[in-house]
Amino acid sequence: MITQQRIMTHYLKAFIQGLKTSGIKEVVISPGSRSTPLALLIHRDKEMTTYIDVDERSAGFFALGLSQAHSRPVALVCTSGSAAANYYPAICEAEASHIPLVVLTTDRPAELRDVGAPQTMNQQELYRSHVKHFTELALPEDTPEMRQYSYFHAMKNGHLATQKPAGPVHINIPVREPLLPDLESDFEFTHTTTMLEHHSTLNSTALSTVLTKLTNKKGVIVLGEQHSTQDAQLYLELANALNWPIIGDPLTNLTSTGGETVHLMRQADSFLPYADETLQPEVVLRIGKLPLSKNVGIWLKRVSKENYDTILIDENGQWHDTLHNSQLVLPISARWLAQTIVEQKPTAVSNEWLDAWLYYQTVTEKLIKTTPLLTELSETAASFTLFNTLKNNTTLFLANSNAIRFADRFALKNTQGYQTYGNRGVNGIDGIISTALGVTAAHPEKANFLLVGDLTLFHDMNGLQMAKAYNLPLTIILLNNNGGGIFSFLSQRQLKPTDFEPLFGTPLNLDFETVATLYGAEYVKPTNLNEFQEEVTKSMSHPTFKLIEIGGNQPEPVVLYETFLEDLKQHLGACQNDC
Amino acid sequence: MITQQRIMTHYLKAFIQGLKTSGIKEVVISPGSRSTPLALLIHRDKEMTTYIDVDERSAGFFALGLSQAHSRPVALVCTSGSAAANYYPAICEAEASHIPLVVLTTDRPAELRDVGAPQTMNQQELYRSHVKHFTELALPEDTPEMRQYSYFHAMKNGHLATQKPAGPVHINIPVREPLLPDLESDFEFTHTTTMLEHHSTLNSTALSTVLTKLTNKKGVIVLGEQHSTQDAQLYLELANALNWPIIGDPLTNLTSTGGETVHLMRQADSFLPYADETLQPEVVLRIGKLPLSKNVGIWLKRVSKENYDTILIDENGQWHDTLHNSQLVLPISARWLAQTIVEQKPTAVSNEWLDAWLYYQTVTEKLIKTTPLLTELSETAASFTLFNTLKNNTTLFLANSNAIRFADRFALKNTQGYQTYGNRGVNGIDGIISTALGVTAAHPEKANFLLVGDLTLFHDMNGLQMAKAYNLPLTIILLNNNGGGIFSFLSQRQLKPTDFEPLFGTPLNLDFETVATLYGAEYVKPTNLNEFQEEVTKSMSHPTFKLIEIGGNQPEPVVLYETFLEDLKQHLGACQNDC
Repeated sequence: MITQQRIMTHYLKAFIQGLKTSGIKEVVISPGSRSTPLALLIHRDKEMTTYIDVDERSAGFFALGLSQAHSRPVALVCTSGSAAANYYPAICEAEASHIPLVVLTTDRPAELRDVGAPQTMNQQELYRSHVKHFTELALPEDTPEMRQYSYFHAMKNGHLATQKPAGPVHINIPVREPLLPDLESDFEFTHTTTMLEHHSTLNSTALSTVLTKLTNKKGVIVLGEQHSTQDAQLYLELANALNWPIIGDPLTNLTSTGGETVHLMRQADSFLPYADETLQPEVVLRIGKLPLSKNVGIWLKRVSKENYDTILIDENGQWHDTLHNSQLVLPISARWLAQTIVEQKPTAVSNEWLDAWLYYQTVTEKLIKTTPLLTELSETAASFTLFNTLKNNTTLFLANSNAIRFADRFALKNTQGYQTYGNRGVNGIDGIISTALGVTAAHPEKANFLLVGDLTLFHDMNGLQMAKAYNLPLTIILLNNNGGGIFSFLSQRQLKPTDFEPLFGTPLNLDFETVATLYGAEYVKPTNLNEFQEEVTKSMSHPTFKLIEIGGNQPEPVVLYETFLEDLKQHLGACQNDC
Repeated sequence: MITQQRIMTHYLKAFIQGLKTSGIKEVVISPGSRSTPLALLIHRDKEMTTYIDVDERSAGFFALGLSQAHSRPVALVCTSGSAAANYYPAICEAEASHIPLVVLTTDRPAELRDVGAPQTMNQQELYRSHVKHFTELALPEDTPEMRQYSYFHAMKNGHLATQKPAGPVHINIPVREPLLPDLESDFEFTHTTTMLEHHSTLNSTALSTVLTKLTNKKGVIVLGEQHSTQDAQLYLELANALNWPIIGDPLTNLTSTGGETVHLMRQADSFLPYADETLQPEVVLRIGKLPLSKNVGIWLKRVSKENYDTILIDENGQWHDTLHNSQLVLPISARWLAQTIVEQKPTAVSNEWLDAWLYYQTVTEKLIKTTPLLTELSETAASFTLFNTLKNNTTLFLANSNAIRFADRFALKNTQGYQTYGNRGVNGIDGIISTALGVTAAHPEKANFLLVGDLTLFHDMNGLQMAKAYNLPLTIILLNNNGGGIFSFLSQRQLKPTDFEPLFGTPLNLDFETVATLYGAEYVKPTNLNEFQEEVTKSMSHPTFKLIEIGGNQPEPVVLYETFLEDLKQHLGACQNDC
C-alpha cells in the first residue's frame, strides 16, 4: 500500500514542477517544521537554487532582490504561524513595485485550525488585498487528477505573479504529519505549460490620435519607476525622435545606458524651481508613476494650463496619477509605443525647444562638476564620487531617504552603464540590506554596491547574515549620520532639540566596525575623498563583502545642499543676464 | 482665523485623551514623517510614557511585553507605508495570546491614495481578521462634535482591546500637510469614559449542574495559557477544594505562586506517558487552551472514554478545544467559577485519588533532584539551575523552542514566586528579545531574566537596541547550540546531514560576545554550573543588561532527555514493584 508520505511526496513534486514551469528557479526558504516536506523536496530539486534565510522578513526582501535582478518570479517558503506575517513588508513592497513573488506558507490541516492549536493562526488571505491572488491548496491525494491540480495552481500562480501588473501571490499549503517526505521515491511529474509574452497596444486610429498630439510639439517625457538600461535606452531614443527633453530619477537608469544622452535632463530636480516660461511645454508624456523628485511634481502642477496636454502611459492599468490631471490615459505597453513612434520617425520640434532646456541642464551640471562643496569628504561628496567612479559591470542599490536623494541631485550622466536598483514601491527603510544582497546573489559576476544610511542599515541588520553565509560580495557604503538624517531636510527640523532628538534625530550610537566584525565584512573608514575613491575602485576590481563607513552628521548635507541651490540660483540668474 | 495646524492639534489632543481614558499609559513610537503630529503630541503629554523604537517589528513586540507586564492596553504609532506591515507578527501574537494592543498607523489623506503616491499603500484593514476592530479616522475638523468623535473612537478602541477576548485593534489616521502640530496651543480635552470590570457567570441552576459534575469525583484540572501568580493561586485553591491534581505548564505560573502546591503535578509531561489506570479520571476540567506538553494532550486522548466528563472553561468564547471532545463548554470567567466553587466548599474526593498522582509526581521530582545528568554544565542543566535559583521579585521570560520545553520538563515547584512570561499565542521565534525587554521596562524594580536560544535571539537581534537606549536591566541566558536545536528533538533528525544541516541545523556561526559589545551588554561565558549560578545570583542582586552564554550543541539535550526518560521509566517501574 502506498504510504501517506509517498502520496504527499508525489503531490508536492507535481506542485514543484508547476513552480518551475512558471519560470521559478530560485526559492528562499526559512527553516521550520511544518514546511519540512516542501522545503526538502525543493532543496533536493537540481533545477532549483535555494537560499536559507532564518529571518522571514529578511528572506522576503532577499527574494525581492533576486526577482528584481533576475527578472523572473522567485518563491518563498516558510512554516506556519507568525513566520508568514514577517513576509508582509516585502509583500507590500513587491505589490507597489510590481515584483513577482510567489509566497508559499505551510499550515496545519483543517482539524488543527481555529481550535487554539499551537503555532496556528488564520493564514487564509493573510495578506489581504496586497497580493494579487490567494489559493488554499487541498490536502494531498493519490490520484493523477489531484497531482495535475496541484501542478496547475503552482504553475498558474507563478504565471499570475508575472502577468501585468506583476506582483506577489500567496498559496497556503496545509500539511499533515508525518512531515518527512519519502526521499526514496523516484517519481517525476513532467507536464509543462507556457505563457507567451504579450502586451497591450493601440489600433492604428488610436495610434494616429497619439501621434498627432506629439508631433512637432514642445513636449517633455517624464519617466518614473525602475527600468532596465535596455528599456531606458529606448526611452532616450523616443526623446531623440521627438527632440524632447526627458526627465527621470536615477532608478529609471536613463543615466546609465551608455548611449547618447543629450536629451536627458538629469538635474531637473535642482533647476526646475528656477525654470522660466521658456520651459513651458505644450504636452507632457508621462510614463508610469512620477519620478522621485518633489520639484518635478511641483513644476508639472505649475505648468498645467489650458492648451496643455498631459498623456499618461499607465502600463499596469492602475491609474497611478498623483496629479489627477491626465487627459489621455493609455493602459498599454510603453515599450511598444516608444518603439512604434521611433519607427514612424515623427516630425520633431525645432532645436530651440531643446536648447531652452539644455541651458538649465548645462549650467547645473557644470556647477556640480566645479563646486568646491563636493571636493571635501562628506556624505554628499562621497555619494557624488561614488556615482562618478562606478564603471560598467557594476550594480548600485540606492537606499531610500538621503541615499537616493543624493543620487537624484548629484548623479550626473554616466556613459559607463551601471545598473541602478532600489525599493521605490512604498519607499520603506525596511529590508534594504536583504534586497541588495538578493541583487548581489543574482549578479555574482558583477561588482555590487549599496549606498545606505545608518538607520536603514540597522533596520535590516539581520540581512547581513546572508552575505556571511553565502559569501556575497556586496560593498556597502554607509552614510553614518547617527540617526534620521532625512528629517533635517524636512519641516521637523524646526523643532526644539528636546522634541527633535528622541523622535527624529534618533541616534543609534552603534559602532559599525563591530557590526562588520560580527558578520565577517571587511571594514574601512576613509579619511578623505581620494581614499574613498580608491576603496570603491578596489571593490570594482576585487569585489568582496565590505563596509565603507562615511562619518557624517545630520545638518551637514542640508547646509551643503542649500548652499549649492543658492549658488545655482546665482549662476542661472547671472547667465540669464550675461550669456 | 484658526490654522489647519491648530485644528489638527485640537483634534488629535481629543484623540489622545480618548487613548488615556481607555487606560493607555505607554506608547511605543517608531519614527517617521507622516506620524509627526500624533507622535509629537503624545510625546509631549505628561501622562504618557513613550518609547522610541526604530524597527517597527521590534516595536510591536516591545509593546506586547509592556502590555503583558502592565496588564493594560499599550499603543503603537508608526508612519505610512510598509512600516505598518512590520507590526503584523506582533499583532498575530497579540491576537492569539489576547494582549490588548492599539495600533495607530498614520496615512496619507484620500487625495494621495490609490494614485501611486510615494510611501503610500492601502492601509485599510491592513491586518484583516487578525485585529478585533478596524477604524478609519476622519480628517480633522474644527467642531466640538468632531473632536468628541475623535476622542470617542480612540477611547472605544482602547476599551475594545481589553474587552474579552482581549487583542489588537487598528486605527488608521490620515494626516494632511503641514505635519507639524501647533505646539503653542494650550487646548485641553477633558472628557472621560469608564468601562467597569465585568465578567460572564452562571445562574444558580447552571452552577448546580457544574457542581454536581465535580463533587466527590476523580477529577483533574488542566490549566493552559499565561496567568498571573494571583490567578494561579486561585486555581491551586480550586484544586485543593476538590482535592484534585492540577496540571499546567510553566507559563500558567502555578509553580511560582509561593503558596501550597501539593496538588500541582509539575512533572506531568514526563510521567504521563507511563501513567497506568490508577490515574484514569472521571472528569477533566480544562481551563483555556491545552498546556504546552504534547504528552498531556496524548494522555487526555487516551483517557477519554464513556462515563468520562470533559468540561471546558473557555473564557474568550472561542471554542479553543484542539481535542474537539468537550462535553460541557462554559464561556464564563474561570476566576469567578474557581472562586465560587472554593466558597461553596464542595465534598472532595478521597485522598486515594490524589495519592495515585503524587506517587508519579514524587518519583519524577526526586529523580530530577538527584540525577547526575543535571550536575554538569549543559544547556539543560543551566536551565534547571536557573529555575531553582530564581527568587522573589524576579521575572523569567521563556523563549519558544527548547527554552520553554526545558522549563516544562525540569522546572520544579518554586515557592519563591517569580513571574514567568512567554509568547505562546502562535509560538513564534520572532520578537522574543523585544517582548522580554518590554516586560523589563515595565518592571525596572525587578531582576528580569530571559532564557533563549541562539536562532531566536538572532531573529530579533535589533530588539537589543532598546536595552542599550533605555538602559534596561535584562539578563539574557543564551543557550547557544549554533542553530535549530529543536529539530534534533523532532523527526527531521532522521535526515542525512546534507539535508539536515542547511534546512534545520542552520548554523549561524555568530560570535555573541561581539553582539554583546555592539549593544553594550556585559558578557560572560561560565565554564561550570557553579559559575553560572553565581552569575544568576549576581544578576538578582545587581540587575544589569547582561548576556550569559551557555555553549551547547544540538544533539546533547536530546541524549540527556532520552537518558532521563529511560531512568524515569526504570524508577517508576522499580517503585511500582517495591514501594
